[in-house]
Amino acid sequence: MTSDALPDAARLTALVEGVRDRRVRDVARAITMVENQGPLGRALMELLAVDATHRSRTVGLTGAPGVGKSTMTAALIAAYRDAGLSVGVLAVDPSSPFSGGALLGDRIRMQSHSADAEVFIRSMASRGHLGGLAATAGQVLRVYDAAGFDVVLIETVGVGQSEVEIAAAADTTVVLVAPGMGDGIQAAKAGILEIGDVFVVNKADREGAQSTARDLRQMIALASDAGESIWTPPVTTAVASTGDGIADVVASIDAHYSWARDCGELDRRREKRAREEIVSELLGMVRGHAASGEAAEELRSSGSAVAQGQATVYGAAERLWHQLRRQEKY
Amino acid sequence: MTSDALPDAARLTALVEGVRDRRVRDVARAITMVENQGPLGRALMELLAVDATHRSRTVGLTGAPGVGKSTMTAALIAAYRDAGLSVGVLAVDPSSPFSGGALLGDRIRMQSHSADAEVFIRSMASRGHLGGLAATAGQVLRVYDAAGFDVVLIETVGVGQSEVEIAAAADTTVVLVAPGMGDGIQAAKAGILEIGDVFVVNKADREGAQSTARDLRQMIALASDAGESIWTPPVTTAVASTGDGIADVVASIDAHYSWARDCGELDRRREKRAREEIVSELLGMVRGHAASGEAAEELRSSGSAVAQGQATVYGAAERLWHQLRRQEKY
Repeated sequence: MTSDALPDAARLTALVEGVRDRRVRDVARAITMVENQGPLGRALMELLAVDATHRSRTVGLTGAPGVGKSTMTAALIAAYRDAGLSVGVLAVDPSSPFSGGALLGDRIRMQSHSADAEVFIRSMASRGHLGGLAATAGQVLRVYDAAGFDVVLIETVGVGQSEVEIAAAADTTVVLVAPGMGDGIQAAKAGILEIGDVFVVNKADREGAQSTARDLRQMIALASDAGESIWTPPVTTAVASTGDGIADVVASIDAHYSWARDCGELDRRREKRAREEIVSELLGMVRGHAASGEAAEELRSSGSAVAQGQATVYGAAERLWHQLRRQEKY
Repeated sequence: MTSDALPDAARLTALVEGVRDRRVRDVARAITMVENQGPLGRALMELLAVDATHRSRTVGLTGAPGVGKSTMTAALIAAYRDAGLSVGVLAVDPSSPFSGGALLGDRIRMQSHSADAEVFIRSMASRGHLGGLAATAGQVLRVYDAAGFDVVLIETVGVGQSEVEIAAAADTTVVLVAPGMGDGIQAAKAGILEIGDVFVVNKADREGAQSTARDLRQMIALASDAGESIWTPPVTTAVASTGDGIADVVASIDAHYSWARDCGELDRRREKRAREEIVSELLGMVRGHAASGEAAEELRSSGSAVAQGQATVYGAAERLWHQLRRQEKY
C-alpha cells in the first residue's frame, strides 16, 4: 500500500518518517505540500517542528546574472560531499515553474543514484507565493532541517527585492562577483555589498580578477569603518568550473559560521529570520481574509472608488482593516 | 518665503498647487514625501486624490538586464516629446538610492531647461519600502497623474517578483527582448512572456533579430490559443540607440491603449491595480502594528520559540493575528 492510499493523518505520519529518513521521494512530497500552502502543509509543519534537528547550516549564494552561481553551487556541493556532509539545495529561480532548475538538475545527477538523498536539489519559482517568496522559502528550509541535511545551499539571483532578502537571511551569505564587472562597483550598485559575509571573485582566470578583489576589499574596509561589525568579510578568488579556490571558499564560510555561532550572531539572525517568517505568514493570512466574505466586497467597491479618484488608497486600506478586525468568523 | 517656512497645512496646499502646475521642484518634493510614508505623505495623497486628472497613460517597460531598457526609455521620451506630450518617468532601480538613476539623468538633461517639467525623471530604489515596492510605485504614479503628465513610463528590470509585477500593472506593458538571447526562450523563462502587451526586439541591427521576432510571434500565437484574450501582442523590431523603429513601437503602444480603453480592459486593469494597492497598504499597516506595543513583544518571544523549534510559524502568526484584532489602540 502506497502512502497515497492512506488517510491524511497516517499519510502525514508516514511522510514525516520519510523526511526524517531523508528519503528523496518523501522530501520532495513534503516540499510540494508546504509550497501548496494548504491545511495539509500546515499540519506537516506542526509535525516537523517537533522533529526539528537544528543541524542544518544555511548558506546563501547570490550575485548578478552571469557570475556563475549555478557552477559555484555545483562546486560547493562536490566539496561538501567530499567532506562527508549531506547537502540540500534550494534554487530560487525567477523563471516559470516548468523550466526551473532543469539545468542544475541535469548537471548534478546525484539523487538518482540512491533513494536516500545525500544531495537533494529543488528549484522554486520566484512568483506566485501567497505569503510571499521568503515565507515559502523559510518553510522549505524547515523541511530540509527536519531531513537533517548538514548544509543547505540557497541560490538566488542577486536582482530583485525578495530574491536578495532570501539569500541575506541565511546563516552565511556568499556574494559572487565576476572580474571586469565594473571592478566590484556593480556589486555595490546592486545593493549586495552590505549583505555579504563572504565574497568570492569567481571566474578568476579572467583578466582583472585581482583588481576586482582589491576593489572589493577596499569597499568593505570603508563600509566596516562606518558600521560596528566585528566581522570583516573575506574576499577570495575562485574558478568554480575547475574547482580552483573552492577549498578557500569553504574555509571562509566555515570561519564565518564559527564566528557567528560563538558570538551569538547566529542566534540573533535565526530569531530575526523567524520573526520575518511569522510576519510574512501573518500578512499572507490577512491577504487571504481580505479576499473573502464581506471584506472582499468592501475591497471591490473601494477598488473602483480609488481607480476613479473618489477615495485614497490609505483611506480604503484603513476601512478594510477595521472591517477585518470586526469580522467574527474566518 | 519658501514653502519650507510655512506650517504643514499651508505647505501642503502650496505643494499641491505646485504639483498641479507641474513644477519640477514640487513634483520632486511630493514624490519624496510620498516615499517617506509618513502622515504628511498621507495627507498629501488625500489632497491629490481630489485633483486627480486621470489623464496619465502608464506604459511599463521591462526586460532582462542588457536588452537596452534605458536607451529605449530615452527614445520613447524623445518620441512623445516630438508629439507634444509631457512625459513622467519612474525608473525602478535595484541599485542603492545613491547611485540610482544617475546614468539616465545624465543622458537626458531636459528637466534642467525649465522649471516647468515636460519631462520629469525619477528613479526609485527597489528595496526598503514599508508597504512593498508596488505600493510605493502606485503612489508615485498618482503624483504624476496629479501633475497631469500625458504619458508615464515605468522602467523596471525584468528579474524579480516585485519588479515584474510593477511593469505588468501599467496600462500597457512593453517587453523588450534582445536578439540571440536564446531566441525569445529567455523571455519565456523569465516569465515575462505573459505580461507583454507589446513586444520589441531591440538592437535589431544585430544578427538574429528577425528570427527572434519570428520565435516570439510563434510563442505568442501558441499562448493566445490557450487563453481567450482578444488582443494579440504585436512584435516589432527597433534600434533604440538610433531611433530606428521607435515610431512602430509608439504606434503599437497606442493601438493597445485604444483597444484596452474601448473594450473596458483599461478600467478592469486600473481597478485591479487599485485593489492591489489597497491590499499592499493594508499589509504595510498590519506590519507596522505587529512591530509596536504588545504585538511586538509577542512577536519577539514567538520568534525565539520558532527559532528553537518550539513553535511553528503558522501557529505564531495566528496568535499574533488574534492579538492584533483584540488590541484597542494603535
